[in-house]
Parts: sequence; structure tokens; C-alpha cells
Amino acid sequence: VREELALAGWDGARIAVVPAEQVIAMSDSPVEALSKKKGSSIEVATRMVRTGTAAAVVSAGNTGACVAASSLLLGRLDAVKRPGIAVVFDTGKTPVVVIDVGANVHSKPEHLIQYGLMATIYAEEILGVTRPKVGLLNVGEEDEKGSNLAKTTHHLFQKTKLNFVGNVEGADIFGGDVEVVVCDGFVGNIVLKVSEGLAENLMAHAVAAIKQGLATLPDNKEIGPALKRAFASLEKRIDYSEYGGAPLLGVNGTVIIGHGRSDAKAISNAVRVAQRMAACDLNRRFTEALSSNSH
Amino acid sequence: VREELALAGWDGARIAVVPAEQVIAMSDSPVEALSKKKGSSIEVATRMVRTGTAAAVVSAGNTGACVAASSLLLGRLDAVKRPGIAVVFDTGKTPVVVIDVGANVHSKPEHLIQYGLMATIYAEEILGVTRPKVGLLNVGEEDEKGSNLAKTTHHLFQKTKLNFVGNVEGADIFGGDVEVVVCDGFVGNIVLKVSEGLAENLMAHAVAAIKQGLATLPDNKEIGPALKRAFASLEKRIDYSEYGGAPLLGVNGTVIIGHGRSDAKAISNAVRVAQRMAACDLNRRFTEALSSNSH
Repeated sequence: VREELALAGWDGARIAVVPAEQVIAMSDSPVEALSKKKGSSIEVATRMVRTGTAAAVVSAGNTGACVAASSLLLGRLDAVKRPGIAVVFDTGKTPVVVIDVGANVHSKPEHLIQYGLMATIYAEEILGVTRPKVGLLNVGEEDEKGSNLAKTTHHLFQKTKLNFVGNVEGADIFGGDVEVVVCDGFVGNIVLKVSEGLAENLMAHAVAAIKQGLATLPDNKEIGPALKRAFASLEKRIDYSEYGGAPLLGVNGTVIIGHGRSDAKAISNAVRVAQRMAACDLNRRFTEALSSNSH
Repeated sequence: VREELALAGWDGARIAVVPAEQVIAMSDSPVEALSKKKGSSIEVATRMVRTGTAAAVVSAGNTGACVAASSLLLGRLDAVKRPGIAVVFDTGKTPVVVIDVGANVHSKPEHLIQYGLMATIYAEEILGVTRPKVGLLNVGEEDEKGSNLAKTTHHLFQKTKLNFVGNVEGADIFGGDVEVVVCDGFVGNIVLKVSEGLAENLMAHAVAAIKQGLATLPDNKEIGPALKRAFASLEKRIDYSEYGGAPLLGVNGTVIIGHGRSDAKAISNAVRVAQRMAACDLNRRFTEALSSNSH
């Protein structure tokens, strides 16, 4: 690792390399791997946060193993019933925090209410949104729509002091009129992956269609670079790495789970977000807000 | 209506205009509106299918009212436990039937198994796919992943004779490696609307980014039209109207629910699909397959 860092221009400062003898693979079963592969990098990093040696975990590894290591080694904040993974979507108008995208596939109404509160504080403190509008992801905007979980949760949200704007539908995530979208981890994970898959599919086909469309034109050396610049700005918008990974909110420590494909920019953005989360003591804010019943 | 048809060039043939005195609005509560607004166009059309006066209902109205009218007036096929709405996505490689996208938000495992069977027959007969691969939408590919509903359903699918390929994730809908994706109506509705919202958002931003990128170039009158052609071919691919609406599978009649924004092409494609469904007696095929336990 030190050799690789040196190749990248590392001068030996600001990075400590800590041994970890095992690697949990993306395909490993999270809980099983944690107990069998003692001393994995995910476990070592999480232990360092537990003992206070490190301020945060930033991982681009197995999401389930990260969640399990956090739950086992850091535990939940006292007031939190279930941690949730938040992801920030860029709509072109406002960032939108979607929570939970996969930590908890058996959500109860009270879990979703807590997600709404934690994501509200995250949007305020980390994204700089004033009094974020909170929507409940559902199959229609009317109050009585949806599954039993959605109906009960809707009712509970109306009693909170959050800026709850009611049910929102799938398309509203990209509408820019809401800054927090709450859903259970099963739905949220599928929303995240549908978005990634569709964006990738559409961009690939857009590039192909445009290349084909311009192939009939007389040679113009400036079109190619101009289009490349245009797409770079677009890709930056749909690029998960811009927002620096997905924080696991509700655990007793700062944990950010990056995409398995994270590049240098994604990791450094994630580290920056982790620093801000630790600096503004987000977990204390969560605990106070959840305990005070003021939400 | 006759005046409008005449303006569009109607010669009086092949279309019968049947009076309907009420309109169920998009915002109406489906079941309530059906009982209060007697003689709505959705009810009249569905009754015509019930009596055999019409072969199919094609609607671009209130989805819930369509589902409710079909359930009340046509009823389910004997062997079917819950009807489901199917939608066809174009991946650029193969069409993918996603079912259910919102008829049934409280699905049980046996409903999902029946969806898988009906969508398989639909893909074979209407889309011309040989032995369609069926995937269960889930939060991971491993067998033991997901909600209790997903786990039980996975286990049941393995016992069928369908071409079940296991769990698929959100991104796999657009991967082109599976032709039928089964999920409960809550998740499916959100998947459909997330896809529509994201595609619209991305296309709008792609157009803006490209215009901006090309604005710096010296005037070239041919670039604009070439890009317009390129985007037209792309938009055709993400255009729901190409596949002619969403069939409601499992009711005792042929019912296609179009998008609220359906244009002439969408309606005429839906009518064509409805004709094919009726012509190949899809409902008899469903009943036979579900009754024979051969699936």
C-alpha cells in the first residue's frame, strides 16, 4: 500500500497505513464474512472509530458488511431504532436526500419517521438546505394511498414538526420540489439501482445516437470536443462521486459507504463529507432531536 | 366527439361513439368515483366488454378506476388471485415486461408467481420472445437476500417450470439479460415513475448541455437538424407510447391502461396490442397454464 501511495506522489504525511489481513469480497455474505474473516479491513477501520483512533470510516467495499460491522462494533445511537443509508441525488435544481437505500429492508413506521428527521438534519447541516421539505415515497399523492406501511407512516409524519409535504411519487425525486425522500430500504435500494442503471443506459444510447447523427455531416473538428465538454458537465451531474458516498445515519460513529466503483474523487469527496459530519457533531444533533420529541 | 373525429378526418367508419355521461377525473378516488359517478366512460367501456359488445377497453384515464372497474365488472379469471399491470421497457437489447406496476400494493408470494407466469405468456405471444428469462426484483442477487416477501417468492419460483433466473437488481431491468421482471405493485409503481422522471430529467439536461456546448462553435446550420434526428431516435426508445400502454393481466377481459399523456400513436399502438391479445386468446392461455400446474 505504501508503495502504491508513493507512486501516486505521497510524501508520507497525513495518511497512516494500518495492517488488515483479510478482505471481505463484494460477493461475501456480510455477517458470515465478518465472523469468519477476522481482521478484515472493514472490521479494522470500524474498530479504529470505536476506540477513537479514527474519526470516521469511509469504505467502498461490501455495503452489507459495512452496515453489519457498524451495527456490531459501533452500535446504534441510543435514540435510534434502525440506522439507514442516505444517498444524495442531484436533480439539477436541488439536492435530494433519499433514505433508506438498503440498510433495513423490514422498516416499520417509526424507523421511517426517524429517517425523515436524520435526513432533515443532514440536509440542513451538510447540504445547507433551509427547512428541507420531506416527502414520503408512495404510489400516489393522496393521503390514503399505498401500502399499510406507507399509510401508517404518513399519519405519523403529519404529527411531527418536520416540514412534511405528504406523499411523493417516484418521478418527484427528480422534480426538485422536495429535499428529503423517505422510503423503506427495500424500495430505496431498488430506486437507487434503477436510477443508476437507467442513467447509464440512456447516456450510452445518447452518445451512440449523437455520434450516428453527426456522422453524416462534413468533417468538423470542433464538434467532437464541444460535445465532449457538454457531456462531461452532464455526467458530473449524474455522477454519484460528486456527493461523496452514502452516509450510514444513526450509528454511533461516522460511517460513509462509497460506491464499489469509487474513484479518487469519490473517496476524497467522501472523506470531506465525513470530516464535516464529525466536525458539526451530527450524531449529537440526531440524539438531541430524537430525544427531545421536538420533531 | 363526432365533430372532433370529423376534424381529424374520420369518414364515419370503424368507430362507434357510445354516450357516457360522467368523467372520472385523474384525482378522483377510484372506488368512490365508480359508485358515485354512474355511467362514466370507464364504466361504460368496461360494461361493453362484459356484455361482449366490445373486445377490449383501452383507457388513458384514472388507473385505479380502470383496475376497480375491471375487478368489479369483469372479475378475475377463475385461476387468477390478483390481476397485475404489466409495462414493457425498451432496453435497447430486448423488451422487458415489468409486472406489477401498481394494481396490487399488498402482494403475496402466490400473486407474484402468477405474475411471472402471465408475463411469460405475454412476452411469448405479444412480444415474440422465446422462453423469456424471469427475474425477481430484489436488493441483491444472492438467493437469501431481501424482504420476507422476496425470500418466500424466490423459493416458490424455483419450483416452477418458468425460466426463472433468480433475483435481479434495479439496474438489471435495463441490462437486457432478462425479459420478465416480477415485483409487488408498490415497488413496481415506484420503479415505473422513477424511470419516467429520471429519463425526462436527463433528456432535458442533455439537450441543454449540448446546446450550451455547441453555442461556442462557429455557426453550422447542419448540426442542429442532425442532433434533432439523433434525439428523435433516442426519444422513441424511451417513449412509453411505442409499446402501447400497460395491459391489466388476469381480469376476465382485455384491458389496456395507457399513460395519462397518451397521444394518438400511443392509443393506436394500445388498440393494436389489445387486438393481438384478444386474437390469440391470451386469457384462455393464462387459465390453462395456471390450472394445469404445469408451470
